[in-house]
Amino acid sequence: MKSDNSSAQTGHLYLVGVGPGDPELMTYKAVRILSDAKVWAVPTAREKGLSSAQQIAEQMVPDTGRTILSLCFPMKKVFLGQDTDAQLLSAWRQSADEVIRHLDRGSDVAFPTLGDATLYSTAFYLLAMIQEQRPQIPVTVVPGITAMAACAASQASPLALGDDVLAVVPAAFEDDRLRSILTTLDAVVLMKVHKRLDVLIDLLEELGLVDCAVLIERSGMPEERVYTDIRQARGCTLHYFSTMVIRKKKVQVSNERNALTA
Amino acid sequence: MKSDNSSAQTGHLYLVGVGPGDPELMTYKAVRILSDAKVWAVPTAREKGLSSAQQIAEQMVPDTGRTILSLCFPMKKVFLGQDTDAQLLSAWRQSADEVIRHLDRGSDVAFPTLGDATLYSTAFYLLAMIQEQRPQIPVTVVPGITAMAACAASQASPLALGDDVLAVVPAAFEDDRLRSILTTLDAVVLMKVHKRLDVLIDLLEELGLVDCAVLIERSGMPEERVYTDIRQARGCTLHYFSTMVIRKKKVQVSNERNALTA
Repeated sequence: MKSDNSSAQTGHLYLVGVGPGDPELMTYKAVRILSDAKVWAVPTAREKGLSSAQQIAEQMVPDTGRTILSLCFPMKKVFLGQDTDAQLLSAWRQSADEVIRHLDRGSDVAFPTLGDATLYSTAFYLLAMIQEQRPQIPVTVVPGITAMAACAASQASPLALGDDVLAVVPAAFEDDRLRSILTTLDAVVLMKVHKRLDVLIDLLEELGLVDCAVLIERSGMPEERVYTDIRQARGCTLHYFSTMVIRKKKVQVSNERNALTA
Repeated sequence: MKSDNSSAQTGHLYLVGVGPGDPELMTYKAVRILSDAKVWAVPTAREKGLSSAQQIAEQMVPDTGRTILSLCFPMKKVFLGQDTDAQLLSAWRQSADEVIRHLDRGSDVAFPTLGDATLYSTAFYLLAMIQEQRPQIPVTVVPGITAMAACAASQASPLALGDDVLAVVPAAFEDDRLRSILTTLDAVVLMKVHKRLDVLIDLLEELGLVDCAVLIERSGMPEERVYTDIRQARGCTLHYFSTMVIRKKKVQVSNERNALTA
């Protein structure tokens, strides 16, 4: 028997995508893992705030006495590759230490995260900070339904078809690339458009794309609102969970020679 | 009582994403809808072929006497906006007619489709053909877990973080845009790379990106194979379900001034 068997007692860390809002869009894997985990680490925007991911997950996973670690992540834009705000860094580091404490005791910890864990989730910053101190920690990432897929599905419309190239552009698109992306690619998803909506509507009007856009606020949640004419959203105060899907081509079938185009 | 109540008796059409292969990555909504539907329309590549989507779905939804419509979709590349192969068009039209026959009888029809229904799924061609004849048919699209999300998750790696722009490029990328996309964007997913793999490896080596790429064949299926060094896949005959994820930046945390970069 080895004297050091601490690694066998280490908890397992799970980053779990819970989908965009509708609890029925959780996967069986997500529900199983969240049911089994004794500890949930949940992201909140401010102290004592509620976690959207937790609220979704709790509708599918009854509470049988789990421990909730409420991790306070200030909602600041992160520009990767640049200096990161010291306050943010300190909050994340504190959160990582809390999670490590539970993993070291042998408890599995699950981190429910909105949408898909692999797409713009803070889960990976937390993971990086944990791995800095515990590089060998066992980690499983569970993918989830993205807001963009739910938005397109709710319109019974594809995101991309055939040889379309799709671009996914996050909130922090304050650069010239957006104009270039909108001009050259076939379909564009703009995530979290709430802050720059009017500027964006101007740009889409200038490029002749305003009629190709659909805006969905809080997709799949009870308060969902859809703008099929995005001009009507001008001046509105939108929720943080607002996604715009711009698709240049329409799916259409006809008996003409150019028979199936999209 | 109205004399024409046919619309009330029309079946409902469901396009249902079943995820990339692991049946546990199906959503509760997908399983519920597939359980309730009396008729499944399943895509197969050739007559009497097996449908991957059906095989995944059947692991979660026991057969209680459903009708299976096996729709034969020849596996040909579709270049949208161009002339479509007459044979393909005829196969799709025949499939649409079969589905309409069941909908007209009042049966709900579910079409299970691999991955996410909104991303490069033939489901939308079928839908367009059905809507050509039955524009008012009620339709629900259920989003699914994408192969790209499952691939990234299996590597415990994000697809995109922070202000990353992600491009999703399908198999039919035989144009100059790929070089431009790889040069200008932060993360690129290449779908169904099996046919042009060696050319692609050459291009990535030329651009200095070969070490940023991971290749996953049949993600989440029992035969899954991962190439963390894609050079080892040179000359290999890969399965149709092969996805490459190229991410230029790494997630890393340090105590240095440039503290959190990705």
